[in-house]
Amino acid sequence: MKIVDVVLTPVAFRDPPLLNAMGVHEPFALRGVVELRCEDGVVGLGESYGDLAFLDQVRTVLPELAGHDVFDLPGLRRTVTRVLGGAVFADEHGLTGGFSVSKTIASVYALFEVACLDAQGHFLGRPVVDLLGGRAREKVDFSAYLFYKYGAHADGTQDVWGEVLTPEALVGEAKRMIDQYGFRSIKLKGGALDPGQETDGIHALAEAFPGHPLRIDPNAAWTVETSLRVARELDGVLEYLEDPTPGIDGMAKVAEQASMPLATNMCVVRFEDLAPAFRAGAVGVVLSDHHFWGGLRDTQALSKTCEAFGVGLSMHSNSHLGISLAAMVHVAAATPHLTYACDTHWPWRETDVVAPGALEFRDGAVAVPDGPGLGVELDPDALARAHEDYLRCGQTKRDDVTYMRRFVPSFQPHTARW
Amino acid sequence: MKIVDVVLTPVAFRDPPLLNAMGVHEPFALRGVVELRCEDGVVGLGESYGDLAFLDQVRTVLPELAGHDVFDLPGLRRTVTRVLGGAVFADEHGLTGGFSVSKTIASVYALFEVACLDAQGHFLGRPVVDLLGGRAREKVDFSAYLFYKYGAHADGTQDVWGEVLTPEALVGEAKRMIDQYGFRSIKLKGGALDPGQETDGIHALAEAFPGHPLRIDPNAAWTVETSLRVARELDGVLEYLEDPTPGIDGMAKVAEQASMPLATNMCVVRFEDLAPAFRAGAVGVVLSDHHFWGGLRDTQALSKTCEAFGVGLSMHSNSHLGISLAAMVHVAAATPHLTYACDTHWPWRETDVVAPGALEFRDGAVAVPDGPGLGVELDPDALARAHEDYLRCGQTKRDDVTYMRRFVPSFQPHTARW
Repeated sequence: MKIVDVVLTPVAFRDPPLLNAMGVHEPFALRGVVELRCEDGVVGLGESYGDLAFLDQVRTVLPELAGHDVFDLPGLRRTVTRVLGGAVFADEHGLTGGFSVSKTIASVYALFEVACLDAQGHFLGRPVVDLLGGRAREKVDFSAYLFYKYGAHADGTQDVWGEVLTPEALVGEAKRMIDQYGFRSIKLKGGALDPGQETDGIHALAEAFPGHPLRIDPNAAWTVETSLRVARELDGVLEYLEDPTPGIDGMAKVAEQASMPLATNMCVVRFEDLAPAFRAGAVGVVLSDHHFWGGLRDTQALSKTCEAFGVGLSMHSNSHLGISLAAMVHVAAATPHLTYACDTHWPWRETDVVAPGALEFRDGAVAVPDGPGLGVELDPDALARAHEDYLRCGQTKRDDVTYMRRFVPSFQPHTARW
Repeated sequence: MKIVDVVLTPVAFRDPPLLNAMGVHEPFALRGVVELRCEDGVVGLGESYGDLAFLDQVRTVLPELAGHDVFDLPGLRRTVTRVLGGAVFADEHGLTGGFSVSKTIASVYALFEVACLDAQGHFLGRPVVDLLGGRAREKVDFSAYLFYKYGAHADGTQDVWGEVLTPEALVGEAKRMIDQYGFRSIKLKGGALDPGQETDGIHALAEAFPGHPLRIDPNAAWTVETSLRVARELDGVLEYLEDPTPGIDGMAKVAEQASMPLATNMCVVRFEDLAPAFRAGAVGVVLSDHHFWGGLRDTQALSKTCEAFGVGLSMHSNSHLGISLAAMVHVAAATPHLTYACDTHWPWRETDVVAPGALEFRDGAVAVPDGPGLGVELDPDALARAHEDYLRCGQTKRDDVTYMRRFVPSFQPHTARW
């Protein structure tokens, strides 16, 4: 079934002032939505980053796609590779490892691979999970993804979550999120406050939510020494410690002495990173993310590779909308070796581009949509509004650092700062 | 789409007296053919080993399959795992590494996985290659698989290939096979004659077929010292040296000094073997085989793992019929990282259970069948004849060793003998 036309729509949606090692989330999060319009009226949906640098790479591929068969994924990858050549999509937020030619190709390919699989599923009348080998699970567990945050954006815009800078406020945020979604695991985005404050936060969560597995992710804000101190302080409390410090070497030094497994979506972000990281014993858990790991099928291959090497698999998330959540649910459902609840920013967004109802959280889990393809449909009005927000907001890239300087003029990213 | 009934038919087909490190091929090769009969009249085909020990394991699973959804491959794997428990399919030919619980499960699962994918393809009206991600190539290259051989079986039955025990006869065998099939790579099954004779054979092939990549596979018949001597003698002549010596440790010692990559389907036969083999630097090429690597999808995952670790991928073959060839072609076509021509015993068989025409060799390659599923259909009369041959031949397991003693009473398997 051939592609007739492809439409790329940049969108923006309101995002609270969430803190991390690189600064604070800007008022809007950006995404790119792709509609592959195919023969027979079939449409395939994809969603990925909305940074201009990424959209520019995607746009160079668009003219090549008309006439392409949605079942020819190897051909799609060849086309993306050929058109992008040695291009590197370089962004500045730096929260998912370095950028490279292979990661750029994998990211652009992934956007279209998901849309092709959605189109395949619609054409065949089957959910994407079936095209990926079937359901290893009927529903996919997600974790409550907590952030320290400011109470308002720089322009004074507030949100329902309020300021969260203390253990008490953190527990309050967790309660609100868990009450609403039923999450049974908790992840804390760290690297924002002093490590001692964040350790206090984890202890407060452990006390408030006994039996909920806990993890913290400071995005490599700590030195090896600090990482080891935190690992000792949180011995028996964390299910895993995510990216405490930069680089495979640093992670390996921490892993050697830490009692809990180390997880990463920063020092292992491409298949080429697996061999050196596994050789060094740097990671016990890889955080998959189909958006940069080359799509849904490559995410499954990553899982099998991790399983073969005795390494666990979890799932990373950026701010995202319903198309991405559907893709995450389908691939997670079809991937037997997925050993932890997945991350999602879902509770932080208030609007979406997909029609409501297909994706519901119950007890912290999302059931695989039953409809064909990804099982979600675009809401054209919502898409138009989100595109208008994109045009109006003036943001064209994610830049937590510069925005943070509106709050703390002397701010520097926290990479291995503590 | 649910399975209604499953029929397992053991079959036998004439096999020439081909020599290897374990002895000589018996007059018949055995296979098991599975027909998954599904709702709507869809039938899915699978083919694998025909040894009684294997068929017994398959038969324990059969009663569990009725009502199973052919799209639920994770459920199929769970069922096979549960029913087989800790069973080990132990055979005696020993040419594809040791047997184990996980390899037994992977082998039985693979038989049914292929049949489910064939059924899925028929139901959806798509070739299996599309269900595996699409065509990385339109046709799949195979190698001429040469054997030293006797001129007649113990009962005097001759074949068109005649006796092949000298370099001249080996070149003649290669010419006949290449004339008929157009192969552009050559593999020699070694471990049958003295290594010096086999090295002479390779040199004769190199001279007769300049530009044809060459490989030799003595099935671990050599010591490390002999392997290194052969590696030196064949420096610049072989594209790879396959399983010269037993075990990961032995292979690593050879790999350290050999100029060509070492390939294996003996010391790496399960995902668990990858980490120790890669860590030791024992292999440069893994020979996949969907029959024991857990089916078509796991073969693709194996490929991705090998690619991530800079290891090549080729494909192993046992004696097989058209269903297995079709499965090999579909998975090879859908697997981008397949760096060598695949092995096949195809030229050695004279009869088949599938209707002719779907699988044709041209220039040593087989085009992916265009029909739905695997693209091959059973010939009911041919299947019945092959089953009668199974019942009549009296063989119930592969036992090259005992049969060899009809020719050489004192014969012992050649494992690391030379």
